[in-house]
Amino acid sequence: MNLILLQPDDFRDEGLAVLSDGRARHIRKVLRAEPGKTLRIGLLNGPLGTGTVLAIDQHEVFLQCVVEKKIPPKPRIDLLLAMPRPKVMKRLWAQLAALGVGRIVLVNADKVEKFYFDTHVLEPDFYNARLIEGLQQARCTHLPKVLVRKRFKPFVEDELDGLSAGHVKLLADPTGEKRISDFKFDGKRVLLGIGPEGGWTAYELGVLQERGFELFNMGRRILRVDTACVAAISAADNYLRTPAQV
Amino acid sequence: MNLILLQPDDFRDEGLAVLSDGRARHIRKVLRAEPGKTLRIGLLNGPLGTGTVLAIDQHEVFLQCVVEKKIPPKPRIDLLLAMPRPKVMKRLWAQLAALGVGRIVLVNADKVEKFYFDTHVLEPDFYNARLIEGLQQARCTHLPKVLVRKRFKPFVEDELDGLSAGHVKLLADPTGEKRISDFKFDGKRVLLGIGPEGGWTAYELGVLQERGFELFNMGRRILRVDTACVAAISAADNYLRTPAQV
Repeated sequence: MNLILLQPDDFRDEGLAVLSDGRARHIRKVLRAEPGKTLRIGLLNGPLGTGTVLAIDQHEVFLQCVVEKKIPPKPRIDLLLAMPRPKVMKRLWAQLAALGVGRIVLVNADKVEKFYFDTHVLEPDFYNARLIEGLQQARCTHLPKVLVRKRFKPFVEDELDGLSAGHVKLLADPTGEKRISDFKFDGKRVLLGIGPEGGWTAYELGVLQERGFELFNMGRRILRVDTACVAAISAADNYLRTPAQV
Repeated sequence: MNLILLQPDDFRDEGLAVLSDGRARHIRKVLRAEPGKTLRIGLLNGPLGTGTVLAIDQHEVFLQCVVEKKIPPKPRIDLLLAMPRPKVMKRLWAQLAALGVGRIVLVNADKVEKFYFDTHVLEPDFYNARLIEGLQQARCTHLPKVLVRKRFKPFVEDELDGLSAGHVKLLADPTGEKRISDFKFDGKRVLLGIGPEGGWTAYELGVLQERGFELFNMGRRILRVDTACVAAISAADNYLRTPAQV
C-alpha cells in the first residue's frame, strides 16, 4: 500500500479523516505511524495529498489531510476483454487498476464459458476492493469503470461505438500483421481488445473490425490472458509517451 | 498447454515418444486425442514439430514425432531481478518463460529479506516445472537459464560483465528520465534490471550504472514486482521488433 485512498465517507470534518478498517491496521502495523507522521493519501477519483496522523489507537486513526490542487490525469487506456476464467479475473483486477485502465468492459464471446459470468468476482463489492488495492499499490486515484456484458452482439451493436468514439481501437489477434508499436496514437485514447483463450471467432473479428478495430499481434507466443493484458497495456502505455499521462 | 514439450528421456526409439505423466493425462482428457490425431510438439531447447498419436490407453500415450529443421530463435531478453517474495516468484516463473526470457538472474539487494532465498520456489525441480508450463502455454522450446546469487557485490563484480557483454542494459527506477521506447536496441540483446519492492539503494544504483546500466522509468505508477516484470519485458519486446525473434 503506497497510498492511503480516501472516500467521502471517511471524512468526519473538513480535512479530517477517521479510519478504522484495513487501512488503519496498515498504518499501525506496517507503517508503524505515530502522531505527527505524514502519509501519502489520495481522494478516490480526485487529487493526491498528504495526511498527518493526529491520533492513533487500537481502533482508529485520525488523519488531517491536505490535497493538491490538480487532479492527476485520467488513464488513457481502456480495455475490452472477453470474460476470462473467474480465477484469472480475480488476479487481474488489481493489476489493471495499477497499470492505469480507465474502463474495463468484460464481454461475452463464443469461446467464453457461460459459467464464467456466475461468479462473485464480478460483484461490485468484490472488484472495487481489488481495484482500490491496485490503486493504493500504484499510488493512483482514478477508479476504473467496470461494465459487464453477457451478450456480445447487442453490446457491439448498441454500446461499443458510444464507448469508443475518438479511440484508437486495437484488437489482439495472431493474424494481425502489425505490432502495437506500428500504430500512431496522436494523443488519442486507446481501446485494447483482448480475446478469450482460444481467440475470437472469425465472426467476432469481422464484427469488431467493422466497428473500427485494427488487429495487432503480440508475437508468436500464446500468452495467458492475464499476462497478455499486462503486456498489451504496458506496450500501449509506452507509446502514449506523455509522461504526465502515465 | 498449447504444445507438448518433449525431452530426450521421453523417446524410446527414433522419433517415438512415450508419455505417462501429466502430458499424457492432458492429451487424453483435455485434447481427447485418439490414434491418428496430430498434436503440436516441441523438443526442449530444440525445434517445434508434430506428434501423431499411435496408441493411447489409461497409462501411456505413444507419439510418432517429426520436427522442423530450424530451431526457433532464442529469446533476446534477459532479466536481472532482485529476489521477490517467494509467493510472487512462484507466480512469475511460468510468465517469464511464456514471455520469452533467455536468462533469469535472481540476485540479493539491500531491500530483499534474507529469508526470501530459503524457499522451495528456488529449487530447480520446482522452477523447471513452472518454466516448462510457461513454454507449453506459449508454444516455445527455449528453457530460460536460471542463476541465483545470494550476494550482490561478488555477483556484480565477478559475473555481471561476463553475462551482459554486448547487451543493452536497462534498469527500472523511478528516477530514470527515459522510457524503454527511448533506447535504441540495434539488434542487441537486452538485460532488464528490476529492483525489489522499495527499490534499489543509491549504492546499488551507482554500482549497476558503473557496469553500464542506464535507467528507465515505467511511469509514475508503482507496480508490483510481477506486474513490473511482465510490463517491462513486454515493452522491450515490442521494441526488439523483429517478428522472427519474438
